[in-house]
Amino acid sequence: MGPGNEFDMVRLMMAQWGALAVDIGDDAAVLRALSREIVATGRELIVSTDACVEGTHFLRGWLTPHEIGARAVAAALSDLAAMGARADAVLFAFVVPDLWRASLVDIADGTAQVVRPTGAKIVGGNLSHGRTFSLTTTVIGSTLHAVARRGAQTGDRLLVTGSLGGPGQAVAALYAGHEPAAWARGRFASPVPRLREGMALALAGVHAMLDISDGLAADARHLAAASGVRLRIDAACIPIGPQVDVVAALQSGEEYELLIAASVTVATQLCERWREQFDVSLTDVGEVVGVQSEGAVEIVGLPDPDVRVEFIVGHDHFTE
Amino acid sequence: MGPGNEFDMVRLMMAQWGALAVDIGDDAAVLRALSREIVATGRELIVSTDACVEGTHFLRGWLTPHEIGARAVAAALSDLAAMGARADAVLFAFVVPDLWRASLVDIADGTAQVVRPTGAKIVGGNLSHGRTFSLTTTVIGSTLHAVARRGAQTGDRLLVTGSLGGPGQAVAALYAGHEPAAWARGRFASPVPRLREGMALALAGVHAMLDISDGLAADARHLAAASGVRLRIDAACIPIGPQVDVVAALQSGEEYELLIAASVTVATQLCERWREQFDVSLTDVGEVVGVQSEGAVEIVGLPDPDVRVEFIVGHDHFTE
Repeated sequence: MGPGNEFDMVRLMMAQWGALAVDIGDDAAVLRALSREIVATGRELIVSTDACVEGTHFLRGWLTPHEIGARAVAAALSDLAAMGARADAVLFAFVVPDLWRASLVDIADGTAQVVRPTGAKIVGGNLSHGRTFSLTTTVIGSTLHAVARRGAQTGDRLLVTGSLGGPGQAVAALYAGHEPAAWARGRFASPVPRLREGMALALAGVHAMLDISDGLAADARHLAAASGVRLRIDAACIPIGPQVDVVAALQSGEEYELLIAASVTVATQLCERWREQFDVSLTDVGEVVGVQSEGAVEIVGLPDPDVRVEFIVGHDHFTE
Repeated sequence: MGPGNEFDMVRLMMAQWGALAVDIGDDAAVLRALSREIVATGRELIVSTDACVEGTHFLRGWLTPHEIGARAVAAALSDLAAMGARADAVLFAFVVPDLWRASLVDIADGTAQVVRPTGAKIVGGNLSHGRTFSLTTTVIGSTLHAVARRGAQTGDRLLVTGSLGGPGQAVAALYAGHEPAAWARGRFASPVPRLREGMALALAGVHAMLDISDGLAADARHLAAASGVRLRIDAACIPIGPQVDVVAALQSGEEYELLIAASVTVATQLCERWREQFDVSLTDVGEVVGVQSEGAVEIVGLPDPDVRVEFIVGHDHFTE
């Protein structure tokens, strides 16, 4: 890299990333180690891209620069977790307004904190000036056992990781001008991609999986539609955080927990042994009750049976 | 995908892409065919990400929606071309203000027009609302012979594809409120990624390569610095477009042509046989004159030897 402000900013970020950033400096990165491992093991490549945009996914005052970086990468890595993949490489595209320049090193530090424990490397990036801050993260992973949204079968149990409702509660509080409760804020500001959990679930032979980004209700419907099945979720079983209403938990998006369909045998075994390996919980919340070509989700056990659960809430940014 | 405005917009784009879009609908895409080909042939993975931002890379009135889509992908694919890679897969992250929604189908159509002839597939995407339009493109390619910026050797010839100066001239005219000349506008609005050329150059055994995104002068300096060599460029040899000043051509960025260092033998053979295979020109513009740890570029043959060529112009968006 030659001189120039843009290169100086990239250098500052590279200093923050240290040994985490590799193969940067050419027009594109050569993923030699991953290519060789694919040859040696037959792993399959998994890729996804995810944008985090100021004013859409968060307001600037809600999060520290560190959290903005960490959260953006966690959201992208969660898509690999949902496929049962390991994270191998990450690329960033930053769009940075003038007023954000001083925060860039802290944002880079936040990304590093989430990438480092995954074992992935930062292999590429792009830095552009722009009027609205955004961070688009592309993740490249691999797995021997990719798990899709389709594949759920009649009789399967439905499982979820973690406790739901935090991000929804935090965003509601922030919009209302209140400080969110600590647990809810943590779940919104510092989500953890369930990579190790996703790999273990894939290895255990679960039938279908996705991450909860639109809310459990909406994502259950995605899984049902992809698999061509009908799901029944028991609201009384849904793991919720402190002070969270179950209907709010069903609609809380950007959870980055996993929703899984697995045979009774696999589900039982997973639930029995789960706590030996993982800190996060795994909870049985329902079942696949039958086949239905367009998919459907029935929610039972609601405290007030007349209450209507919205399936398309969450994060449809284009709904007026 | 369930109902919702966001999904409707994705569906409209998917309709535009048709068979070009594959493996979309899960949290991440599984690149099965590419993974198997890597196993079978030992190709290496190449990845890059590139953002195109309204107000930074273009003003809205300068380009049609179709051109905005086409140009964004071409710029990203050019990074694969510079590595000598084939394009295998493309992912898009759109940030779309309300006023841009009606243009999205045309933008998608523009991306398709550039992706289709490459043989790559669109395997993933992200659609977010935001105040500033941007399109971030991630490209995944593969090659048996990756070419980097480092590798140029003393005595190598320097070659460039195409004719330079168009984008610089077009942007200058647009900023001044004039309609650019047709050739210059075409070079700015519809750049062609030199993928086939890059693959042929890699196969021929060139020593170093990069694409001209910051301007020939600045990019020559990048190549010199990465290779630890001193370059001499003969301005009189630089292929320029109609009505283009050679100094402007040296500083014209976003050309998406290739700058190559190759041994005399390889360069001679390439220049002799080039026209049999390719429509775009290949021109000898200089040589590697020696070793210099931090790299350096000398430009000779300028019409006015007192004129100063800027090496850091182009597209440093963070220079005031």
